[in-house]
Amino acid sequence: MSAAESGANKIFIGLLGYGTVGSNVYNLIQDQAVEIAQATGATIVIKKILVRDITVPRQDAPAGLFTDNFGDILDDADITVVVELIGGIEPAFDYITSALEKGKAVVTANKQLLSQQGFYLFRLAREKETQIRFEASVAGAIPVIRVLRESMVAADLTSVYGIVNGTTNYILTEMRRTGAKYQDALANAQEWGYAEADPTEDINGNDAAAKMAILASMAFHTAVVLDDVACIGIEHISALDISYARNLDLTIKLLGVAKLYDNKINVRVYPALLKKDHPLASVSGAYNAVFLKGNSIDEIMLSGPGAGGMETASAVVSDIVSIIARGTPGVLEDIAAWRELEFFPDDEVVSKFYLRLEVEDEPGVLATIAQVFGDHDVSVESVIQQGRGAHAELVMVFHPVKEASFREALEKIGELPVVKSIPRPIRVEGDGYEQ
Amino acid sequence: MSAAESGANKIFIGLLGYGTVGSNVYNLIQDQAVEIAQATGATIVIKKILVRDITVPRQDAPAGLFTDNFGDILDDADITVVVELIGGIEPAFDYITSALEKGKAVVTANKQLLSQQGFYLFRLAREKETQIRFEASVAGAIPVIRVLRESMVAADLTSVYGIVNGTTNYILTEMRRTGAKYQDALANAQEWGYAEADPTEDINGNDAAAKMAILASMAFHTAVVLDDVACIGIEHISALDISYARNLDLTIKLLGVAKLYDNKINVRVYPALLKKDHPLASVSGAYNAVFLKGNSIDEIMLSGPGAGGMETASAVVSDIVSIIARGTPGVLEDIAAWRELEFFPDDEVVSKFYLRLEVEDEPGVLATIAQVFGDHDVSVESVIQQGRGAHAELVMVFHPVKEASFREALEKIGELPVVKSIPRPIRVEGDGYEQ
Repeated sequence: MSAAESGANKIFIGLLGYGTVGSNVYNLIQDQAVEIAQATGATIVIKKILVRDITVPRQDAPAGLFTDNFGDILDDADITVVVELIGGIEPAFDYITSALEKGKAVVTANKQLLSQQGFYLFRLAREKETQIRFEASVAGAIPVIRVLRESMVAADLTSVYGIVNGTTNYILTEMRRTGAKYQDALANAQEWGYAEADPTEDINGNDAAAKMAILASMAFHTAVVLDDVACIGIEHISALDISYARNLDLTIKLLGVAKLYDNKINVRVYPALLKKDHPLASVSGAYNAVFLKGNSIDEIMLSGPGAGGMETASAVVSDIVSIIARGTPGVLEDIAAWRELEFFPDDEVVSKFYLRLEVEDEPGVLATIAQVFGDHDVSVESVIQQGRGAHAELVMVFHPVKEASFREALEKIGELPVVKSIPRPIRVEGDGYEQ
Repeated sequence: MSAAESGANKIFIGLLGYGTVGSNVYNLIQDQAVEIAQATGATIVIKKILVRDITVPRQDAPAGLFTDNFGDILDDADITVVVELIGGIEPAFDYITSALEKGKAVVTANKQLLSQQGFYLFRLAREKETQIRFEASVAGAIPVIRVLRESMVAADLTSVYGIVNGTTNYILTEMRRTGAKYQDALANAQEWGYAEADPTEDINGNDAAAKMAILASMAFHTAVVLDDVACIGIEHISALDISYARNLDLTIKLLGVAKLYDNKINVRVYPALLKKDHPLASVSGAYNAVFLKGNSIDEIMLSGPGAGGMETASAVVSDIVSIIARGTPGVLEDIAAWRELEFFPDDEVVSKFYLRLEVEDEPGVLATIAQVFGDHDVSVESVIQQGRGAHAELVMVFHPVKEASFREALEKIGELPVVKSIPRPIRVEGDGYEQ
């Protein structure tokens, strides 16, 4: 008789939220009951599910499981694991804190919360000698959190970077593939379910920034919160940029980059132009990919679909299994090893830039502009000038330069009467100087 | 005062072997002492190192650590973790067995041994309530073993495949890049340290087969040994095949493929032609990449450099850290969940094939050959005929077909007087029908 059949060892779960991920978690636990029982020696039983309105009919889970009162879960001594899938800061923070205070283990997919209160929650879990696990908060079923926490202790990591937002990657892929404008590609992504009705957090880079805060914290053992992450979204990327990029054999991707410079940390999210043979250039559609580099490892990449309902559920269940299987709480080691790294200022980061300028189409304009860049020690690598009737378009790529110098030069350029508009510059990566 | 400084909790290691990996492990443990102490609360101390001849002078480790007598390590009650890095079956099997019998934990990078005696060793570790860990046995620093063991319990995996031998991938990449012959590419790989002086095990696919046996065992929780893996190497791949492949926009890679067909398992290693946009087509040089697919996960890829000395050492140290950090022995769960899957016969696998034939250059030859294939229900997708003086070359690609049918047709073709030679056919993958 298997453990599943005997039911000798049952682990009772309280589920907070029953949307797509919640119902997938419910079904996955039923479908994989035998495998889970064999792997852990225990049967997982979802005992209660918190929803806002228990009168709404729901699929799969029996009506008797639902409650609209968190106290029913918190005060149930049988429930030893709370799975938080409601998202947002409150009441999720209150629920998780209360659960940890009572010594219950927590599994969460809540990147917003972790990117703001992660360190507090990790320390609380440690104090209460319980666990908090959050694989599903970053990159869906790609087990990057586990790999960072458990396989990289001796790797001496120096950078973690990649594509961590599937929605924007889908939009950028569509813009490149079809030449579509940003708004049309976004509408298409919404139609296919790759973007939410309100995609603001994806588009402005905040979703990626939250994930990078979590990844950077785990990789470098230092508290990085959302506010520490400088963030540029993809709203200003035009079909024209995509088209110029294609001509230059480059692809635009929204990157998250966390890096150590002389043991100081810098974490940022920004669109970047990548050469076609850069390994991230071929990560297309809603896929995510994360690179890990360190002094003892050359470069490891993990990639896979971003957070789909089933992938996220699979990551949540694997966290539940880990909680059951482990005697030693998983996160304790991490917190014990945390340090307080200084931040490396964004201004000091050396980057290569692409810039598209609209200028008057008259003699000497290029010379004037080149002169201003030269005065600021900003060196031009290549330039394309294209007449467009009364005005001209300049597409310039610069040699690596400190951001502060480049920004100062841009301010001066903006003051020139011949310059009609300066769209936001885009970083160029992948020449090997920057990683 | 840190744990490292206090030395309150020391973990004593016995190292078997002091080659490239062994000395890197030694140095990494010294260099990362603080991080390891913070992560585990313990200091790792390498107490003894087994070598064949203690009179040979060695770098880094003090001479007093070396011994040529395994008993010095086995009988040292302080030593709780034995790290086996000597490779091969004997005496490694004897050493590991003895260590486990005494309740010592074992870390090993020995794929040959694991692919033949893995199940026995896992069971022994379980009986003795200790652990055996072996991340470094497959794919260097890419933590695929950990991900399979710990993140995929709910993923319901159906296939694991990829490029798991860096030497052959380097050779095939060079052949494609430079048009070099196999022998020249091999010599180049040896010169650059990507192939050993005796590369037989890499070239004939046995190294990849051993790794696939281990991966398949972990992915499907069933004992797969080296002999269960059908294996074709790259010895017969000619510069001509590479050149035709390039014309067809295909790339040749040595693949390891483990798959479930109706809950029966099939594990194989073979060279395959991949379309240029197949994600494995761009894995070049000595890199490895492993794909995981399941019913709850669409597709996850892990990639990185194959086994370099530093990467392998990093994987070994992460295994040591896991052994120290975990209360629950890691492998026990796996073994408890193991089942006995039947094997799916190679003959029944449906594949697409590429075939290059040398034939007499006379009228009706193509018709004769096409007739024989048609008689065996083997359907031609495309054919190129090229005259080469007295004879002609036929390059044919076939629609997906059962291997048994294809082999029968090939036997008949071989009996035709107009056929001068039939080099080994090569599978074509990536049309989506096969994964």
